Amino acid sequence: MRDRFLRACRRQPVDRTPIWLMRQAGRYMPEYRAVRERYGFLQMVKTPEVAAEVTLQPIRAFGVDAAIIFADILPPLEGLGFRLTYEKGEGPVIHNPIRQPRDVAGLHSSDPRETVAYTLTALRLVKRELNGLPLIGFSGAPFTLASYAIEGGGSKEYRLTKRFMYEQPAAWHDLMERLSQLVAEYLIAQVEAGADAVQIFDSWAGALAPADYRAFVLRHTQNVVATIRARLGEAAPPIIYFGTDMAGLAGELRQIGADVLGVDWRIDLDVAWAQYGYEHAVQGNLDPMTLFAPRELIAARAREILQRAAGRPGHIFNLGHGILTETPVDHVRYLVEFVQSFPLPTEAPALEEVME
Amino acid sequence: MRDRFLRACRRQPVDRTPIWLMRQAGRYMPEYRAVRERYGFLQMVKTPEVAAEVTLQPIRAFGVDAAIIFADILPPLEGLGFRLTYEKGEGPVIHNPIRQPRDVAGLHSSDPRETVAYTLTALRLVKRELNGLPLIGFSGAPFTLASYAIEGGGSKEYRLTKRFMYEQPAAWHDLMERLSQLVAEYLIAQVEAGADAVQIFDSWAGALAPADYRAFVLRHTQNVVATIRARLGEAAPPIIYFGTDMAGLAGELRQIGADVLGVDWRIDLDVAWAQYGYEHAVQGNLDPMTLFAPRELIAARAREILQRAAGRPGHIFNLGHGILTETPVDHVRYLVEFVQSFPLPTEAPALEEVME
Repeated sequence: MRDRFLRACRRQPVDRTPIWLMRQAGRYMPEYRAVRERYGFLQMVKTPEVAAEVTLQPIRAFGVDAAIIFADILPPLEGLGFRLTYEKGEGPVIHNPIRQPRDVAGLHSSDPRETVAYTLTALRLVKRELNGLPLIGFSGAPFTLASYAIEGGGSKEYRLTKRFMYEQPAAWHDLMERLSQLVAEYLIAQVEAGADAVQIFDSWAGALAPADYRAFVLRHTQNVVATIRARLGEAAPPIIYFGTDMAGLAGELRQIGADVLGVDWRIDLDVAWAQYGYEHAVQGNLDPMTLFAPRELIAARAREILQRAAGRPGHIFNLGHGILTETPVDHVRYLVEFVQSFPLPTEAPALEEVME
Repeated sequence: MRDRFLRACRRQPVDRTPIWLMRQAGRYMPEYRAVRERYGFLQMVKTPEVAAEVTLQPIRAFGVDAAIIFADILPPLEGLGFRLTYEKGEGPVIHNPIRQPRDVAGLHSSDPRETVAYTLTALRLVKRELNGLPLIGFSGAPFTLASYAIEGGGSKEYRLTKRFMYEQPAAWHDLMERLSQLVAEYLIAQVEAGADAVQIFDSWAGALAPADYRAFVLRHTQNVVATIRARLGEAAPPIIYFGTDMAGLAGELRQIGADVLGVDWRIDLDVAWAQYGYEHAVQGNLDPMTLFAPRELIAARAREILQRAAGRPGHIFNLGHGILTETPVDHVRYLVEFVQSFPLPTEAPALEEVME
């Protein structure tokens, strides 16, 4: 059953719980570091053969149940006119961030089929090698892209983003509409290039109060999902929406229209699922730091997650956020084997069995 | 009704919703910066007259409904043998962090009545000036203190803390027991020095998976609360437990035994209250960044919070985290006046009125 990941996304029964890991192609792998020594990060993303090779590394090493294209959420912003570099130790820097409404009005229109063609080519290359294993495409969500575009890089409190949103609501919504169109077009192009599912990373939206998410973000996230469904119809892939720190946003997440909701590690999976509604599949939710723990503890935590999800189809095992640098590779392999050999219970266990 | 803050902590009816602001004595105030120019941060904390003066500044400036003693969560660690400095721009640094089990065994025992006597003196000085306005004492929670003691400073992923917890559980629990005793003694001493309520700041515990909170933290937090209640009996003050990113920890927070649970801005207040249980009062939950917004938006968000809390006694208005540097002082004043003049509805409004 090579499509068990896609079946779980659609809440169909599976033979066992599928597993893949966010940022599974990354620095913790020696094979990745060997490639990285020869290329800059952005160069890896923009060279389809290299991106394809790196995408396949964790498939070969661990036999996870899905591949996710090696790419980054920020390069699509270059098509709008943003100048992007990755500084050593600092992460991404946007050198001409948005600071005023006229900066939004001056953005270019952009066809991701041209500006991010390298990632679409990489998807086609990977697809040939997967022999039916599902391939996941992805994009940053409008809010997370907007926050990078405004802050010019990472941020702790999103001061500039929130002030722009509060003080310039018309320009904010203009920016979010442009980004929503970009994201939808980019994800549609990824599906046409071979992606079997798409994940929308809203990594930073958990920094928002629910009232702000409703006022400034929700309609744009919904538009991305609705545009993909309207354009692709029956061919629309499962859509996964992921963010961290979203345990308080259940009421909003329910309204996005995604098939699958990502769950970070800060909430019990069954509690999240009940709040998100069983009309969604769920993906998660082991703390990435738990992979540094002794094997017995990795097993205990993974077992608890599997048990909390048991009794209903629609769980994809994953970490609650991307895998961390320096994660022990043999612990990753242990986790994948543990999940893949776990007998799928047919009904939810009593709570006593789950608690420690 | 000068005790409306304490009445709300006990879920008794009040004439209007009380308000105070976490870190209300801070750099955003010109009066504070004038004092800070003459003293180092730790020097301010350790000079009772200065700490008392700074504590009173926001009472005079805004007429908030409670004072919170100007202090810091880390100096009590000095009594255990930790060497602490505050580096400019870097925040606190512990120069001899815990890295191995023997570091825990080598900690000193410490009587906070001696080692943190300056804060107890400051409490007595402030108490005389308050004319019955409630005075809040506080401490870091065992987990948050442990994470500082292990990381040696702030952290993003708490890698060292979580690894120590996972790999050295016996030493971890030993450390947490020592810290729980310290915290309980310190808070009891603060009550004896005049604190009318105490707040336990577990600022970083929201980084934990619920399973890890249950296994490594919950019993110690409970012990702090139980020790205070056992020792002070009828004289035990309201106990407030606060952390951020805790929307997924409701099941654990319910078990701590606190009177009041702090709510950060990442969840609607009524949703949090329902999950935390109405046997608790709640404190929160405006996003500190909203104080940078235009007044109309501050009013809209504050109104929504007040309406979501309406219909049951036990809400203390506050921010969802500490007030930020550079917050406009006139916006703080506007918020306090808005909340203090808001007519207290006697029943919960329909949801339509609350949504935007």
